[in-house]
Amino acid sequence: MVNKQTEKYSKMLSEFKETVRNIEYLKYTLNSLIYWDKITNMPINGIEYRSQVMGYLGDELYRLLSSKQLKRCLNYFDGNKKNDDIVNGMVARIKRNHYYVEKIPKDEYREYISLIANAEQVWEKAKAKNDFKLFQPYLEKIVEKFKSFAEYWGYEENAYDALLGYYEEGVTVNEIDKMSSDLRDFIIELLNQIRQKEDYLEQDSDFIIGLETGKQKELSEWVLTEIGFNFDSGRLDEGAHPTTLACSPDDVRIVTAYNETDIRTGIFNALHEGGKGLYEQDIDKKLLGTLLAEVASFGVEESIGRFYENVLGRSKAFSTKLYDKLRELSAEVNIFDAESFYKYLNHVRPSLIRIDADELTYMLHIIIRYEIEKDLIHEKITVAELPEVWNQKYREYLGIEPDNDREGVLQDIHWAAGYFGFFPSYFLANLVAAQLAAMMEKEIGSIEELISQGCLECIHDWLAENVHKKGAVYSTSELIKKITGGAMSSEYYMEYLKKKYDKVYHL
Amino acid sequence: MVNKQTEKYSKMLSEFKETVRNIEYLKYTLNSLIYWDKITNMPINGIEYRSQVMGYLGDELYRLLSSKQLKRCLNYFDGNKKNDDIVNGMVARIKRNHYYVEKIPKDEYREYISLIANAEQVWEKAKAKNDFKLFQPYLEKIVEKFKSFAEYWGYEENAYDALLGYYEEGVTVNEIDKMSSDLRDFIIELLNQIRQKEDYLEQDSDFIIGLETGKQKELSEWVLTEIGFNFDSGRLDEGAHPTTLACSPDDVRIVTAYNETDIRTGIFNALHEGGKGLYEQDIDKKLLGTLLAEVASFGVEESIGRFYENVLGRSKAFSTKLYDKLRELSAEVNIFDAESFYKYLNHVRPSLIRIDADELTYMLHIIIRYEIEKDLIHEKITVAELPEVWNQKYREYLGIEPDNDREGVLQDIHWAAGYFGFFPSYFLANLVAAQLAAMMEKEIGSIEELISQGCLECIHDWLAENVHKKGAVYSTSELIKKITGGAMSSEYYMEYLKKKYDKVYHL
Repeated sequence: MVNKQTEKYSKMLSEFKETVRNIEYLKYTLNSLIYWDKITNMPINGIEYRSQVMGYLGDELYRLLSSKQLKRCLNYFDGNKKNDDIVNGMVARIKRNHYYVEKIPKDEYREYISLIANAEQVWEKAKAKNDFKLFQPYLEKIVEKFKSFAEYWGYEENAYDALLGYYEEGVTVNEIDKMSSDLRDFIIELLNQIRQKEDYLEQDSDFIIGLETGKQKELSEWVLTEIGFNFDSGRLDEGAHPTTLACSPDDVRIVTAYNETDIRTGIFNALHEGGKGLYEQDIDKKLLGTLLAEVASFGVEESIGRFYENVLGRSKAFSTKLYDKLRELSAEVNIFDAESFYKYLNHVRPSLIRIDADELTYMLHIIIRYEIEKDLIHEKITVAELPEVWNQKYREYLGIEPDNDREGVLQDIHWAAGYFGFFPSYFLANLVAAQLAAMMEKEIGSIEELISQGCLECIHDWLAENVHKKGAVYSTSELIKKITGGAMSSEYYMEYLKKKYDKVYHL
Repeated sequence: MVNKQTEKYSKMLSEFKETVRNIEYLKYTLNSLIYWDKITNMPINGIEYRSQVMGYLGDELYRLLSSKQLKRCLNYFDGNKKNDDIVNGMVARIKRNHYYVEKIPKDEYREYISLIANAEQVWEKAKAKNDFKLFQPYLEKIVEKFKSFAEYWGYEENAYDALLGYYEEGVTVNEIDKMSSDLRDFIIELLNQIRQKEDYLEQDSDFIIGLETGKQKELSEWVLTEIGFNFDSGRLDEGAHPTTLACSPDDVRIVTAYNETDIRTGIFNALHEGGKGLYEQDIDKKLLGTLLAEVASFGVEESIGRFYENVLGRSKAFSTKLYDKLRELSAEVNIFDAESFYKYLNHVRPSLIRIDADELTYMLHIIIRYEIEKDLIHEKITVAELPEVWNQKYREYLGIEPDNDREGVLQDIHWAAGYFGFFPSYFLANLVAAQLAAMMEKEIGSIEELISQGCLECIHDWLAENVHKKGAVYSTSELIKKITGGAMSSEYYMEYLKKKYDKVYHL
């Protein structure tokens, strides 16, 4: 009896794995390789046929995910006591890959897709014309769509939980709220302290250092090599929007962007995307074929990006390395000594545009989005009120206010593109980065010291061992629990900020 | 009754078109986009997973091509009187896409694939060690395989016809033989005449002009723009082996290679691949979705490449344009005047390596391969005799003889890679290029004059109208007949060679 069951289990398992392997081939080809080509290499007129190809392969992927064979496997393995972590992970991953689309009636989903396509174009026009009213009816429809999606997807307490869960499994509004309001007040208070400091009052935020793109490219390659990115298993290219795409752990493609007039853009893109690139390269190749050779979640991936960008990249020790390298490449950096270059990389200055924000105020931009999104979905504010609510929050939290909606509520494509429930991932990423850093320091010692001793590899190894190599076997919260033994917390992040800005501004 | 039949026809046709469209999406993605990425961008370690992906998509393509639905459509449309040229072309194309693999028993085909994989590696070793004996048993097996393939595929008169037909539908040994032996004797005679000339005796074939790769790239872009390649619908990249791959007529990717020490490599690659690129870009986009938005055959594609490389690229008028452009880029070219630069591009000098050959002797290399292949398949010679036969033919036709097999029979990967029946396409390409040129001159005037008047567009337009835009609707012979009203002929080519070398060497 037992033998027969074991036999059936292993027979079903090889069927499950074969089906999933094919899904993976299609998914990685479509979402990584073909998409990468589209944003880096495709000639401009190629878009029409390419869209058809991508539509066809997307349909094929949907067909495989909806197949009877796969459903039979899912029914058999879902909750099966014989499963190891990997099989459990596979079940969870497939359900997530498919659940959210399948729950929405096909017609309504198609309507949504076409709404988004239009909304993105209208948003672009509205931003160019600085005319929120143009975009308002579209955004209203998008908000209505997401309210109805939340009902299809289901939630226990708050409708927004359903949207949040799409990006970070099991994370809830209550959990975020517990951290975000304290953190918001903490950052505002810290910002106010910094604003009093002589160093802050004296710093010239208009001063920036530029460098020709060719040399910035060389610098980015240096940064990637320093942190341990393997160019035999990956590459670096340019594109309009920085991102990292993996065709497999052995074929990881970083897309970056440079700003000729400000070296910081290229440096922090390389560190951020490079961190994500390390994550992808370190994933255990044994997970290929299970759909688990991926990052655990958007939030965890982003946390590794933030770790390399902020914790490591803006550290005293790494900024000194950067400073030395930059002096090789450009004479202009000589106007600084290493100490003021470090401070330059860590300057705080409230600004209106999220993607230009410094490390500290960045989090306030994120919290504002989160608060607004949540209130929209929970019907506490209307779309019509958005510009006013937006401006008021910027005044209150950052002490500055946009002159127009282009620099305010219209600045990002996110809502036009249907990214509702997405900003909390950015929020969590910063907390997790600080929490990982704290755990790392407990186990292998001070990050600053490891860097100045030249052991970037120790840092990389710790992350590979504790996070990267596990791929998507565990969800965000499971992973955090495995590493820290506890839940996500904002304490490590507050501690980190206090320590950093004390060093920069002598609070 | 008639109405019902018409209704059924159009119902079947839309089913046929939908099935074929999906096959096309998969085929162009796999054979153009994914393959292109593999040879230009893929990081070295990416090969393992990429091979799996390509294997999976290849199987999918085979699955679609073998589907009952497609077979039903083929049965219905094959020979159907209602068909227009496009439907007839679709039927022929699908049959060709599938016929050759389907006719071979699966086990035998798999055996062949693994034989080839090994043979390529052994050939590489044998070439490095200059040891034909190492490769001999593999080549013997390959020849046996192709003899048995010929039986599976079927032929009327000569077994080699079956192999030839794989590349050029309906072309036969008798047809080629009729042209090739006369042409061989003609070229040998012409070569002997040239060898007597003072200009030939005085020319320094060791003299070459180099240029740094960056500038050669600029030159290649200029060449492509001059001949009419549209960079909004295509791109130029570097790779080990020059080729042209089309993801669609709006996304055509030229891969080229440069030689820092000899500018001619890059120039003629750009012209050859550029010509093929024009062909791909000009294909009528209405043919997309029918598998006919492709070149008519390898031979026709190659003929356009040869036209741009030799007829246009080595013409007096174009060489003058090239000369002027080169003077902008490099001082070294000043040692020539425009006239001697033209001669430099057209120097004749028998050499052992096919890919380094000049325009005239190139054809003798091709004819030698063809004669040997044919004799191997028809059991007139054995593989063991190959090196001797090879050397003897080089002595007889070119007046030179390799010192070793590395520079002789082992020089190309073609036979190791299973390209049996392929060299006649190269042969035809040269004839067709000259035949097209003759028709073109009859209709729109002297090519030399069109170029010197700056109307490269007139030439491009003529080819687009008469060849390119038709895609793969017609076979090679149908196409030639449509353009010239007759069959393929070697006369135009002989005429062309006589005229050219009279100009270069004053015969």
